[in-house]
Amino acid sequence: MEDITGILVDLFVLFAAAKLAGELFTRIRQPPIVGEVLVGVLIGPHALGLVGLPDSSLVNLFEGIGSEEAAKEAVTVVFDVIALLGVIILLFFVGLETRLSELLEVGGRATMVAVLGIIVPFILGFAFIWLTDPVGTEDLEIEAAFVATAMVATSVGITARVLGDLGAIRTREARIILGAAVVDDILALLMLSVVSGLGEDSFDALELGLTAVVAVAFVVFAALVGTRVIRQYSIHLERLKIRNAPFLVAMIVMLGLSALAGIIGLAAIIGAFLAGMMLAEAKERFNLEQQALPVYEFLVPFFFVIIGTKVDPGAFTDTTILMVALGVTGLAVLGKLLGGSLASVGLPRRSAAIISVGMVPRGEVGLVAASIGLGAGIITEDIFSAVVFMSIATTIIAPPFLVWLYRGYRFTAEDVAEAPEEPPLPDL
Amino acid sequence: MEDITGILVDLFVLFAAAKLAGELFTRIRQPPIVGEVLVGVLIGPHALGLVGLPDSSLVNLFEGIGSEEAAKEAVTVVFDVIALLGVIILLFFVGLETRLSELLEVGGRATMVAVLGIIVPFILGFAFIWLTDPVGTEDLEIEAAFVATAMVATSVGITARVLGDLGAIRTREARIILGAAVVDDILALLMLSVVSGLGEDSFDALELGLTAVVAVAFVVFAALVGTRVIRQYSIHLERLKIRNAPFLVAMIVMLGLSALAGIIGLAAIIGAFLAGMMLAEAKERFNLEQQALPVYEFLVPFFFVIIGTKVDPGAFTDTTILMVALGVTGLAVLGKLLGGSLASVGLPRRSAAIISVGMVPRGEVGLVAASIGLGAGIITEDIFSAVVFMSIATTIIAPPFLVWLYRGYRFTAEDVAEAPEEPPLPDL
Repeated sequence: MEDITGILVDLFVLFAAAKLAGELFTRIRQPPIVGEVLVGVLIGPHALGLVGLPDSSLVNLFEGIGSEEAAKEAVTVVFDVIALLGVIILLFFVGLETRLSELLEVGGRATMVAVLGIIVPFILGFAFIWLTDPVGTEDLEIEAAFVATAMVATSVGITARVLGDLGAIRTREARIILGAAVVDDILALLMLSVVSGLGEDSFDALELGLTAVVAVAFVVFAALVGTRVIRQYSIHLERLKIRNAPFLVAMIVMLGLSALAGIIGLAAIIGAFLAGMMLAEAKERFNLEQQALPVYEFLVPFFFVIIGTKVDPGAFTDTTILMVALGVTGLAVLGKLLGGSLASVGLPRRSAAIISVGMVPRGEVGLVAASIGLGAGIITEDIFSAVVFMSIATTIIAPPFLVWLYRGYRFTAEDVAEAPEEPPLPDL
Repeated sequence: MEDITGILVDLFVLFAAAKLAGELFTRIRQPPIVGEVLVGVLIGPHALGLVGLPDSSLVNLFEGIGSEEAAKEAVTVVFDVIALLGVIILLFFVGLETRLSELLEVGGRATMVAVLGIIVPFILGFAFIWLTDPVGTEDLEIEAAFVATAMVATSVGITARVLGDLGAIRTREARIILGAAVVDDILALLMLSVVSGLGEDSFDALELGLTAVVAVAFVVFAALVGTRVIRQYSIHLERLKIRNAPFLVAMIVMLGLSALAGIIGLAAIIGAFLAGMMLAEAKERFNLEQQALPVYEFLVPFFFVIIGTKVDPGAFTDTTILMVALGVTGLAVLGKLLGGSLASVGLPRRSAAIISVGMVPRGEVGLVAASIGLGAGIITEDIFSAVVFMSIATTIIAPPFLVWLYRGYRFTAEDVAEAPEEPPLPDL
């Protein structure tokens, strides 16, 4: 294990920098996550290079099997795994705060927000790339469809964190956003499969249909049967001999459903969210939130700071790329605001604004889409940078507006009904 | 992040298998860690292959830069990082249970145990390899010196965990073992540097002396100055704005000192232990143990199960290797029992036995030594397998004897003095 000292140093720098930036941003009354992402950009391999570059002993490990390049890729994989664990815990915690019954209550509205929040940005994004053809691609339609797809998915993690920081996670608006994000993620990831499929020679409509059916079945099964099973049988966890068995079983369910979601082609975080929602049925009995909280506080910051390290600020010295990035970002924001507003007809104006703004951050879902597109050769490195920019920018833009929209918000009794029993989402 | 689904599945299988085996072994009244390590051997890449082998999407990531071999190495690196985080948390927790004053109280005896526990196994190991020359090496003395060095270091983690499970972590014997293990680790790692240096063409005595001085300075500084700083200034942590600041700062110190230990050539876990010992001065004020516990329970099992995955049971079908492995293991046990007994002269017989047996497990320190030796080309793959066998076997042998030695042990008031305020070390 001597050879991984370099990675350990990186993890220390990532964590310390994230917390330092979080403290700083808290003091200037900004959401700490913005500080965490930005400090990631600063210390990442594309800027200061304090983290993310393999040291010589790690390179030695890969001698003869790809050497420096492979070692660099390995560091990326390690970062991605740690970040994935972080975002899984994050979504598990969000799920733990979500009662299925409350989600179903807002189901109709949430579905509308999700569907319109997908259609509008997709049309805007597709039209923008198709009309401008910024990098002169052969398969312009596929490129345009891909960028448009990357623009549709909402990263519920960012918004959930901001809402949690504000103590607003149980408000009606928050529940609509969370519900919409679940539907939105499922639809967006299906679209991603379609578009990635279009780029391949052997596009299989049957396989895609099957994926869709399996995905929907998984979500419905976990939400309906899973919650019931936990409600009825979790009492038996007390019969296990290992200490703290309920918490450990919760972690097993969390990892298991995340892995399962990944296997059937959904984002792992959807599985984590569903696991949390299932275990919400047993959280009071086993004090799950209080036990999951330190794991959350230790792992979640890695997710945000590592997202930051993936940005190459240098790519945007090219004017075309900068214009594409700004255009895509603007349309991504506009699309969600329009879609959210349309879907919020009949709600108070502030609620509509909160919902629309809450759907703006693309975060890790946009990044996943970008990396898939680059990996499949559908988009060029420049377009990739633009999509990453959009993901980060939408993520950074939204939180201050959410904070502003909630200023002076009067929480109803229902919003804080269970608050005294539960710790708020932590402020990392 | 889609590409790392395979690793996520692995992490789920590792965690679930570890907990299942832990539950099983608890029910048959064996230490759960033995179950965790053995199930790791079973599911590891050398046996069932349920974990540790890259899936096709990960291999694709390394296309053209080492492909399958590099992807496999990357999975190993990921496992090592997760295991390292686990063992760091483990040693941090052990440190948190250790008061410097209590350690100094047993300092003389602990040093004797450490020194004799190094000298005796070294002589036995060196003589064994030198007299038998099992694989016909050119540089027989260096090979013999290396195997002997791998036999000297104690893995305090295993013993600490067993003692924690027994509620015996504050007994005089436990403190002697922990103190001896700290001294032992430092000396063993210095010896490892010497022996690795002997294998190189450019052996630099000055550099080695410098390492030794820096290492000793680090330990003394952290132990004496660090604890004082925490005692006097930790109250100011309350002025930080981020939530749960003291716990987060504790995690930063833990990662930082671990990384620093790694940088100056010590095992990272020594840094983690020292960080824990420093923060023990502030643990009541900030409730640090209760907050670190869930992180411990989530991450530590990975360490034990991943150690298991590194064993290749197939290597021991070769009779010579099997004999070497058994011989090295037997002498490693005998060496610590003899050394411990000599150093425990004047103590009650049961105490001497507990101390001697407690020093037997080599665990991760033996594995680190083995991997360094293999990497530097000092030992062959066969000797590597034998050293790994010794590390695992000594780790598995000791716990049942410790449990047996503590049967009917009468804890004194001092042993459990602070027990009501603190949760016991968890039973993973």
